[in-house]
Amino acid sequence: MNPDETLLAVTQQLLHVTEPEQAMGLRHNGVMPSVEAIREMMTLITGVIFPGFFDRETVTARMRQYRIGMDVERIYGILKQQIGRAVVFCEHCDAAKSQAAAHDMAVRFVALLPEVRRLLLTDVEAMAQSDPAVASHVEVVYSYPVVRVMTHYRVAHALHTLGVPLIARIITEMAHSDTGIDIHPGAQIGEYFSIDHGTGVVIGATTIIGNHVTLYQGVTLGARNFVRDENGVPVDVPRHPILEDRVVVYSNASILGRIRIGHDSVIGGNVWVTHDVPPHSRVQQGKLIELPHFTDGAGI
Amino acid sequence: MNPDETLLAVTQQLLHVTEPEQAMGLRHNGVMPSVEAIREMMTLITGVIFPGFFDRETVTARMRQYRIGMDVERIYGILKQQIGRAVVFCEHCDAAKSQAAAHDMAVRFVALLPEVRRLLLTDVEAMAQSDPAVASHVEVVYSYPVVRVMTHYRVAHALHTLGVPLIARIITEMAHSDTGIDIHPGAQIGEYFSIDHGTGVVIGATTIIGNHVTLYQGVTLGARNFVRDENGVPVDVPRHPILEDRVVVYSNASILGRIRIGHDSVIGGNVWVTHDVPPHSRVQQGKLIELPHFTDGAGI
Amino acid sequence: MNPDETLLAVTQQLLHVTEPEQAMGLRHNGVMPSVEAIREMMTLITGVIFPGFFDRETVTARMRQYRIGMDVERIYGILKQQIGRAVVFCEHCDAAKSQAAAHDMAVRFVALLPEVRRLLLTDVEAMAQSDPAVASHVEVVYSYPVVRVMTHYRVAHALHTLGVPLIARIITEMAHSDTGIDIHPGAQIGEYFSIDHGTGVVIGATTIIGNHVTLYQGVTLGARNFVRDENGVPVDVPRHPILEDRVVVYSNASILGRIRIGHDSVIGGNVWVTHDVPPHSRVQQGKLIELPHFTDGAGI
Amino acid sequence: MNPDETLLAVTQQLLHVTEPEQAMGLRHNGVMPSVEAIREMMTLITGVIFPGFFDRETVTARMRQYRIGMDVERIYGILKQQIGRAVVFCEHCDAAKSQAAAHDMAVRFVALLPEVRRLLLTDVEAMAQSDPAVASHVEVVYSYPVVRVMTHYRVAHALHTLGVPLIARIITEMAHSDTGIDIHPGAQIGEYFSIDHGTGVVIGATTIIGNHVTLYQGVTLGARNFVRDENGVPVDVPRHPILEDRVVVYSNASILGRIRIGHDSVIGGNVWVTHDVPPHSRVQQGKLIELPHFTDGAGI
Amino acid sequence: MNPDETLLAVTQQLLHVTEPEQAMGLRHNGVMPSVEAIREMMTLITGVIFPGFFDRETVTARMRQYRIGMDVERIYGILKQQIGRAVVFCEHCDAAKSQAAAHDMAVRFVALLPEVRRLLLTDVEAMAQSDPAVASHVEVVYSYPVVRVMTHYRVAHALHTLGVPLIARIITEMAHSDTGIDIHPGAQIGEYFSIDHGTGVVIGATTIIGNHVTLYQGVTLGARNFVRDENGVPVDVPRHPILEDRVVVYSNASILGRIRIGHDSVIGGNVWVTHDVPPHSRVQQGKLIELPHFTDGAGI
Amino acid sequence: MNPDETLLAVTQQLLHVTEPEQAMGLRHNGVMPSVEAIREMMTLITGVIFPGFFDRETVTARMRQYRIGMDVERIYGILKQQIGRAVVFCEHCDAAKSQAAAHDMAVRFVALLPEVRRLLLTDVEAMAQSDPAVASHVEVVYSYPVVRVMTHYRVAHALHTLGVPLIARIITEMAHSDTGIDIHPGAQIGEYFSIDHGTGVVIGATTIIGNHVTLYQGVTLGARNFVRDENGVPVDVPRHPILEDRVVVYSNASILGRIRIGHDSVIGGNVWVTHDVPPHSRVQQGKLIELPHFTDGAGI
Repeated sequence: MNPDETLLAVTQQLLHVTEPEQAMGLRHNGVMPSVEAIREMMTLITGVIFPGFFDRETVTARMRQYRIGMDVERIYGILKQQIGRAVVFCEHCDAAKSQAAAHDMAVRFVALLPEVRRLLLTDVEAMAQSDPAVASHVEVVYSYPVVRVMTHYRVAHALHTLGVPLIARIITEMAHSDTGIDIHPGAQIGEYFSIDHGTGVVIGATTIIGNHVTLYQGVTLGARNFVRDENGVPVDVPRHPILEDRVVVYSNASILGRIRIGHDSVIGGNVWVTHDVPPHSRVQQGKLIELPHFTDGAGI
Repeated sequence: MNPDETLLAVTQQLLHVTEPEQAMGLRHNGVMPSVEAIREMMTLITGVIFPGFFDRETVTARMRQYRIGMDVERIYGILKQQIGRAVVFCEHCDAAKSQAAAHDMAVRFVALLPEVRRLLLTDVEAMAQSDPAVASHVEVVYSYPVVRVMTHYRVAHALHTLGVPLIARIITEMAHSDTGIDIHPGAQIGEYFSIDHGTGVVIGATTIIGNHVTLYQGVTLGARNFVRDENGVPVDVPRHPILEDRVVVYSNASILGRIRIGHDSVIGGNVWVTHDVPPHSRVQQGKLIELPHFTDGAGI
Repeated sequence: MNPDETLLAVTQQLLHVTEPEQAMGLRHNGVMPSVEAIREMMTLITGVIFPGFFDRETVTARMRQYRIGMDVERIYGILKQQIGRAVVFCEHCDAAKSQAAAHDMAVRFVALLPEVRRLLLTDVEAMAQSDPAVASHVEVVYSYPVVRVMTHYRVAHALHTLGVPLIARIITEMAHSDTGIDIHPGAQIGEYFSIDHGTGVVIGATTIIGNHVTLYQGVTLGARNFVRDENGVPVDVPRHPILEDRVVVYSNASILGRIRIGHDSVIGGNVWVTHDVPPHSRVQQGKLIELPHFTDGAGI
Repeated sequence: MNPDETLLAVTQQLLHVTEPEQAMGLRHNGVMPSVEAIREMMTLITGVIFPGFFDRETVTARMRQYRIGMDVERIYGILKQQIGRAVVFCEHCDAAKSQAAAHDMAVRFVALLPEVRRLLLTDVEAMAQSDPAVASHVEVVYSYPVVRVMTHYRVAHALHTLGVPLIARIITEMAHSDTGIDIHPGAQIGEYFSIDHGTGVVIGATTIIGNHVTLYQGVTLGARNFVRDENGVPVDVPRHPILEDRVVVYSNASILGRIRIGHDSVIGGNVWVTHDVPPHSRVQQGKLIELPHFTDGAGI
Repeated sequence: MNPDETLLAVTQQLLHVTEPEQAMGLRHNGVMPSVEAIREMMTLITGVIFPGFFDRETVTARMRQYRIGMDVERIYGILKQQIGRAVVFCEHCDAAKSQAAAHDMAVRFVALLPEVRRLLLTDVEAMAQSDPAVASHVEVVYSYPVVRVMTHYRVAHALHTLGVPLIARIITEMAHSDTGIDIHPGAQIGEYFSIDHGTGVVIGATTIIGNHVTLYQGVTLGARNFVRDENGVPVDVPRHPILEDRVVVYSNASILGRIRIGHDSVIGGNVWVTHDVPPHSRVQQGKLIELPHFTDGAGI
Repeated sequence: MNPDETLLAVTQQLLHVTEPEQAMGLRHNGVMPSVEAIREMMTLITGVIFPGFFDRETVTARMRQYRIGMDVERIYGILKQQIGRAVVFCEHCDAAKSQAAAHDMAVRFVALLPEVRRLLLTDVEAMAQSDPAVASHVEVVYSYPVVRVMTHYRVAHALHTLGVPLIARIITEMAHSDTGIDIHPGAQIGEYFSIDHGTGVVIGATTIIGNHVTLYQGVTLGARNFVRDENGVPVDVPRHPILEDRVVVYSNASILGRIRIGHDSVIGGNVWVTHDVPPHSRVQQGKLIELPHFTDGAGI
């Protein structure tokens, strides 16, 4: 192939906006939200909530006061700009009004930061209490993915509630990529929440979780099936479980549908739950645990 | 220990090429493929396919025409160079010939970019149709890992087919690291493919997937066992499943071996399938769903 | 809201050290370990162990000798500094003594690098032997996540043994984030260890693994339950499994508690094992594999 | 001194806007012009005028077309933004009107770029003709400071004329810092202008220079004295020389005041000229050249 | 030549510390002052003295308070570190004592910053008063080299006085490189000092300059000859001129030796002064100005 | 103006290669020498010649051995590449042959580095001996522009002699920009050469300078007039002065034409010399020094 012709032709083809792109609204003329800017904002938020842990340069105690002040300003500045870009893509939003409100929404978000910090500290405490391998709370902040994912979730949930769903989703997906834990920003999660290991955990958009709940890796809090409208389009109704206070769910368990797991229940590993569970229950997989089949035969 | 002596000794030991390194061919004198360059190429490809979404700087509509042209040139330039470095490691390739053909292979790849884009747009559409939490196609591109993993897979599959398997594998592993979804570049995947959440999904090298197929997190499309040659070395024969059109596989299901899942079938969560399944089937785990064991006893 | 007042107030609130932060010891006046510096050290270690694979710039064979020497020095320099920062957070360490010993520990670690390399080369060899899709050992180093995770684990285990548990945990969590494989630095793992795909694998702190062991994605080597002291605090006792030589564990299997899996055993996919298994056993999930339930009914 | 107190006190003092700062208008609340952005714009302009000479990365001929298009867009984008910031500081400008006109002024400037290039090529030609050490025109572009200073001057003069004097001055001062040649953007300079070596050359704001004029290092085209108004403030009237076509001025000569140097004249090195000089003159320092004083005495 | 041998041999030769290097004390085992760190400190100092002019990113008025506080901390931190490195090279310093005093010297320097700012504002005012081409004080700060060189000189003079001569010299040489104006940090310069154009100006180490003094480009305030000791080594005695208040020195004039130029005097361009000048004098070059030699002959 | 049309039109105009560009050979299809790469090479050379002075990061004595070896390799690598690009522009070179010889020329250059270092150390020594303000040789290396300019000149002269004049000129112009000292790479300069202050110094291409020569700021060693061929093109013949050993030239003196300044002579400041000067002479400006004209009249 002749590169001169091919590359020119490919460029022309890629410049051409195809019908599906048009139909899906993927070619937008304005400036779109910047994933990189949002990532920088999350780095700043993590820094003001856990000062000292993630500094790139040496920051003395005297400098801390200025640093936090400046970072709060930067968080506000980035968010205001990104909200202004994102509201355009919010179907349910009154864009004109939201655009005007971007400034206000950014201030409201910043005002929530101390509460976000308070909640995250309960998560750190919960994690430290639930893993015998933990040596210190400092270790939890440095090396437990739940801290990273919950920082992102709690920020994203605040933004989701304030009416910036697109940015909220970008933020939780960042944490999903880093930790393998996928929490939808619409989920409601109480205090003292912990997840150990966590890879493969999925928490759906309408999930409600109480206080002092603990999950392990691979747990799915998912939908059992979808309600579709007359056009076959899935409808966004409550379809994920409710976990009451002090529930523990062991690894790879799946809890599906708008069911309620009563407080102080324990869901065993690998089980598949699709009905309500009363308080103080213990659900387990039974025979498969007790009676593994030992064979000497060939092939598995 | 004396650092002067120790560090000098360690340096000497590390400089020494050990017998296993030699035997495995890990010390190569020439310049090897650069993961960083390949990553840059993937960033450029993502940018020309989804213009506006991942720009670092403001790019106006007028600039777009130049930007896409320049990025297509850069993609070509990086790929040509990396293919030239990679063919050396291709056992089944005629290196001398391939080296000469690096230029041609890079042009051929670039010529496929519009088709890669077309396929990816069907994946975006499929994802938007299958999740009730989706607010817009823009949200899908920004925050669904399937878009990222399929961009990498579809590029890697094109390179695999063109005869650059090492670079193809480096590319899919990048996406595996980011998304927890591990698709081998040799797999064949049709249009309108979607994966929700996705962490833990594995799609093996000889898998064949039709159109309009949907997977959920933790699904394995794997091998059941290996054929080994007389020396005990595993042989690369078709050993992964075939999924026909409109198959849905729910979370954590395992479909193993060269079996065929007939079109319009649904494989339920957590099931383990090792035999063919006829069209329009529904496979589920039965009792465990219907009859969880509730107990109040101690220990799980 | 008035941004002037709000941002000032939020800054003051965030500057205020809350009681939980105080109680958990999260506000530390000195300089804390730098995740970024530790990441740089891991990049350097990866570079001296697999020279040529991850170079950013062209490095000729003549330059290699200088490059490895310099990188060994840098590894030593970073580690010495980070140990000095980390020992403060080690509850069981004699900080004063350890501080003085930071220099010595860093030298001891560097002296272990050739052995770390030797072990990693056995892992590369094992991986190449166990996957029919592998084309060359070079491909394994470039694109199998097990190489990345084992480089981090083997370094972290050395540091854990030398008495720097916090840095060790930060290192394994880096690999967990990249690969979805979570290996605690305290685990003991023999030679020729391989993990294919790997997303979701968890290997607990007191696990003991022999030689020539192979795992697949989603395998948990976990604890069954915790021993707690009189205050309800979990105690760090042996609670994870022992896998003897030549054990294979297929995808999503869970092996829980201080049990022993005898040598040359095969644990099938998705099984849940909580009792000892004698040598040469084959454990599998039985009926679910053989008898999937086919139905034509609605819902899954 | 106590650093805690001192640094806090100094910060407070520096935050306080002193009376002179207030009086001089140095504390401005809005965003001010960015020297760094203007520097980037000059780098882009230099690149589109002399393509290939100052590329950081390899740019193929095919890429050139996109690159120039994109860089022209960037030049326009930066300039529009910087003009918007700068007009605030223009005392003689109708700021409101100019702000609205920033867009238009940036377009007008870009439209002048081809003429700027034409003029600069005459300067390159002139330089190549006047120095026997020149090997090629390529060498002139790469290594003669006159090219750098004239690129900056010709751009700055265009901006000065369009009504953006502050940005124009920032640009010529950049070149002054790099080359030691200080040309005011208000000066008028014809075609085929060359300066050899150039360090120390000063060309004042109301200077008028014809075509084919050559200067050497240390030449001053300055004012002889100032006209001041009733308040003693210097008045900006024509006060620098007029050099007609084909004038040559040798090193360290000073030509001062609103005088006219007739065409085809030669001004010798080190002379001091404060009166008109008719065409075809040769002005030299006479005796000092012919009769140096030789002595054997001590001291100089 | 064989590159393998040559490069190895050259490396060995360069590693070898030659006798002159040894004798001159150029191979120092410890860490030496970092020009780059000092440059960063000067950027920070310039930023706190002229806030808003040289910001790279947008800094709002609210952020200013934090920014200045943090930058003052950084200035202190860099300086303390660099003084600690530099005192080793100060022959006349009691290194041990100075090392201990590095902390104190850095605090003392920071305490001088408000006074440095006050003096620089007088220089800006003086420059604005003396050039008819100036449109605003803002233009002076942005584009007159005297502001840059005096910021460096006034900082360097403070450090010189506090006893850190090496860092002081590095700082003035930075400004010399940028502006062509070479002021020794030991010189004493009063308020309201201005230099127009400035390239080639030299102000020697023992120069004393009063208030409201103005210089033009190429002015030398130098030594006439050196006093040498019995070994022929030049001795550092007062050897540069004293300029009293309100002296103006026009371009390229040389004032040499420990002479006194009386207040309110004007030294004309290009003159060479080696004797005292009484107050209110006007010194000029006379005939050469009045009677240029016009000739029509060949050659210059 | 319409920006859409204007920017498109300007891009087209700039893409068009005009006749003068064509005639001057300024549009070159291949890759041209990179000023940035050459600058990096000079940074590396400065680093191996004055180890420790300009390190960006901490380099221990143990690391030095590796660092110098690696940097020598890098110097060689950059130079080989840049020579390959530059020979195309050498009119007097046999490009084909030179291209083949690029490798050899780069080796030859590296082999000269120890001699370049030896010569530079004599320059440092000379500078330290001639300025009473010098506190240590360390100060000279850090802060005297002569060290910077002579490092560039001595490297450039070596390259000029080896037959790479274009790169040589780019290098000396870098130093000219930094220091205001313009030395042509063709000039021949002996040992123990020093320049104080230096701004404005010009040393022409055919200048010959002996040992132990000292210059001050503003000195021109230039041509008096040009020999032109029948086409009026200046011819590159010996036209600059010869300075024998131990000559001192004070500030702003001009020595012009192919004249000889005898050994041990002193040329006073501001003088203009165009004839031979015998050994042991002292040339000075006489009356102007002794008899300044004092007046009280108006004007200067």
